[in-house]
Amino acid sequence: MPENPVSTAISPLAPTAVPTMPAIDGVRLATAAAGIRYKNRTDVLLVLMDEGTAAAGVFTRSKCPSAPVEWCRKMLKDKAGSRSARALVVNSGNANAFTGKNGRDATRLTAAIAADAADCRTAQVFLASTGVIGEPLDARKFTGVMDDLVARAAPGAFLDAAKAIMTTDTFPKVATATARIGGKTVTVAGIAKGAGMIAPDMATMLSFVFTDAPIAAPALQKVLSEAVTDTFNAVTIDGDTSTSDTLMAFATGAAAARGVPKIARASDPRLAGFRKAFTAVLADLSEQVARDGEGARKLVEILVTGAVSKVSARRIAMSIGNSPLVKTAIAGEDANWGRVVMAVGKAGEPADRDRLSIWFGGIRVAHKGARDKTYDEAKVAARMKEPKITLKVDLGLGRGSDRVLTCDLTKEYVAINGDYRS
Amino acid sequence: MPENPVSTAISPLAPTAVPTMPAIDGVRLATAAAGIRYKNRTDVLLVLMDEGTAAAGVFTRSKCPSAPVEWCRKMLKDKAGSRSARALVVNSGNANAFTGKNGRDATRLTAAIAADAADCRTAQVFLASTGVIGEPLDARKFTGVMDDLVARAAPGAFLDAAKAIMTTDTFPKVATATARIGGKTVTVAGIAKGAGMIAPDMATMLSFVFTDAPIAAPALQKVLSEAVTDTFNAVTIDGDTSTSDTLMAFATGAAAARGVPKIARASDPRLAGFRKAFTAVLADLSEQVARDGEGARKLVEILVTGAVSKVSARRIAMSIGNSPLVKTAIAGEDANWGRVVMAVGKAGEPADRDRLSIWFGGIRVAHKGARDKTYDEAKVAARMKEPKITLKVDLGLGRGSDRVLTCDLTKEYVAINGDYRS
Repeated sequence: MPENPVSTAISPLAPTAVPTMPAIDGVRLATAAAGIRYKNRTDVLLVLMDEGTAAAGVFTRSKCPSAPVEWCRKMLKDKAGSRSARALVVNSGNANAFTGKNGRDATRLTAAIAADAADCRTAQVFLASTGVIGEPLDARKFTGVMDDLVARAAPGAFLDAAKAIMTTDTFPKVATATARIGGKTVTVAGIAKGAGMIAPDMATMLSFVFTDAPIAAPALQKVLSEAVTDTFNAVTIDGDTSTSDTLMAFATGAAAARGVPKIARASDPRLAGFRKAFTAVLADLSEQVARDGEGARKLVEILVTGAVSKVSARRIAMSIGNSPLVKTAIAGEDANWGRVVMAVGKAGEPADRDRLSIWFGGIRVAHKGARDKTYDEAKVAARMKEPKITLKVDLGLGRGSDRVLTCDLTKEYVAINGDYRS
Repeated sequence: MPENPVSTAISPLAPTAVPTMPAIDGVRLATAAAGIRYKNRTDVLLVLMDEGTAAAGVFTRSKCPSAPVEWCRKMLKDKAGSRSARALVVNSGNANAFTGKNGRDATRLTAAIAADAADCRTAQVFLASTGVIGEPLDARKFTGVMDDLVARAAPGAFLDAAKAIMTTDTFPKVATATARIGGKTVTVAGIAKGAGMIAPDMATMLSFVFTDAPIAAPALQKVLSEAVTDTFNAVTIDGDTSTSDTLMAFATGAAAARGVPKIARASDPRLAGFRKAFTAVLADLSEQVARDGEGARKLVEILVTGAVSKVSARRIAMSIGNSPLVKTAIAGEDANWGRVVMAVGKAGEPADRDRLSIWFGGIRVAHKGARDKTYDEAKVAARMKEPKITLKVDLGLGRGSDRVLTCDLTKEYVAINGDYRS
């Protein structure tokens, strides 16, 4: 087991430009090296938020969620907390998952230490952990660093924050956008980490998005839940759903001081621009997660059209995106549409072999249930060498369509997961 | 794309002893090199069966089945055929799947050529194909060889038959057993091929089992359908369901001449011994398929106990058996029970994290939701080096249990599937 599993080789699919991250009024961040597992790197993130910050979250659908996921769910339900957040503590290196009573105790202790340092109630502290499952997390390690983190917390340090929450990620993931509410600008800034154990039902391990927009918690929750469907939930790396998947949104409301109107309901038409910007940040972050899939050498976009419904199209797209045979073929730069047919067939959704058409990289390779008459292997092979492959399937049955992002399955994925205990 | 994808390196999990295969009265076999795809090897199998042979089959649940699967399904329903078989033609190298009208024409032509040579009706000819999907199969290649195959057909040539149907298999798969019906001995002999695209819902590409027992087609079908649940359907290599999965059973009834009573119904108590022997042959063949999973270095037996039902236990076992993260961990000889928890959690079945216990190789590593207090990493690590790993999960909820066989996920799997177009 390597001391520091963060690979030094950056994914060839990493974005070439990293945006300059803005400050979000009411949000301050700091990171530290608490020595939870990794050497010589930051592994704990503290985010402080001003009084009145609304919180929303979506979490793994795993039946065996981690202790921090249970903590956050409980705090979001807690009336005393009123879905308000003052602090977020994230550690990497240890997921505090499947740690029994010790795990619950560790969350309580971490929240207590953070609440003490941040001068808030424990119910206003949110927690996330990522890393090894089943190892007890020694929350006492946070005691020493928490006061220091509070003292050093500064606006805009999102890139450092994204670095501190990495595990097998090869690059930090940040995204930002602005929107207008009532004629005034609000800002959205988010961070995320991947990179294995990524599957639908909350398809990232951790992501946190912050805004200064004054949006009430129920409205923020609704915007978040809607936005996740076609962003994080449309990404799969290996079909394995983490016990720790957490996506949270925090709205400080600080923009209200600049005259941005307070938004109480998700149906408020003034939220249209914000919803778009917020969804764009999630889409950006979730694509970065796919681009940093463990061992990934190709970004694969799967488009399914002509299905009987969007739900059916999603299931078929996921069946393709989770097929080891499709993913190894793409790793081998082989436009193996036979395996795509296999994956369509095993999805269990309505499909008629003789109406199927399949495109790789925009070139139709199969049409109406057989190889395309114009099929030119050399032309397709050249297209398969590109770093991004779009695989389109038309079922010819209805108007349901969907889009899923994944990556190829390489020997490096096996190497990473055969060596690193995650 | 290699000319001959049959690996020369035999799986380290291959059985050390190959049984001497008996003759089955009423069954004759022959193989030939028809040059469908491979060079210098046999790739077509003809099995001739005496008049009165009963046929039964179970097939892939893929919504995009191959043309031969559709052919067999139709012939089994056909009243004119009365579920009777006279010939079975199997080719390797081309699956005749997703080949549109050409595929249907190829099955018709193949059946016609075989019926002509075997002097039977086309409705009595059964077909199976394995290999590349989406390439047109030139059935005219069979014209030249079929008469010769009929002329050369001989009893007992099951090992040669098993060799002719291989694709990426590294060893031929045969099994045999005997049973008593009405005090007289009957014989069962079977062959199978794996080795990728193996998943539940008919977990092999092709398997054929023959017996001289006089069992009517409906009874044979029932025995087959029951036996498949805990044998072939309990094996998964990569979760990818083939378009061609075919398991057929043929009962020639020749043993009736030796005084074995004719069995009309599956509920006949005289069938108990036969059922056991027949199931044992399927279990043997399906274990061989797991042992020859593409790139496999470890045979993995997954036992789930304490689930709310057998169905629930099966789903959880399959979720574990199909998890890339669990399979890569086992390839790395890492008793990574955290990933097992993840796989239990994502199955969506009732589970209580705090009641879970997990064993690797008989050593309990986790108990009641946390690492076992007596956990000794060195001891477990030594056990993980063995070629067969038993992974047991107790859910502590009920009395449902099940067993699934799989293998590890290695770099060789990726290499095989990144190079070979199957």
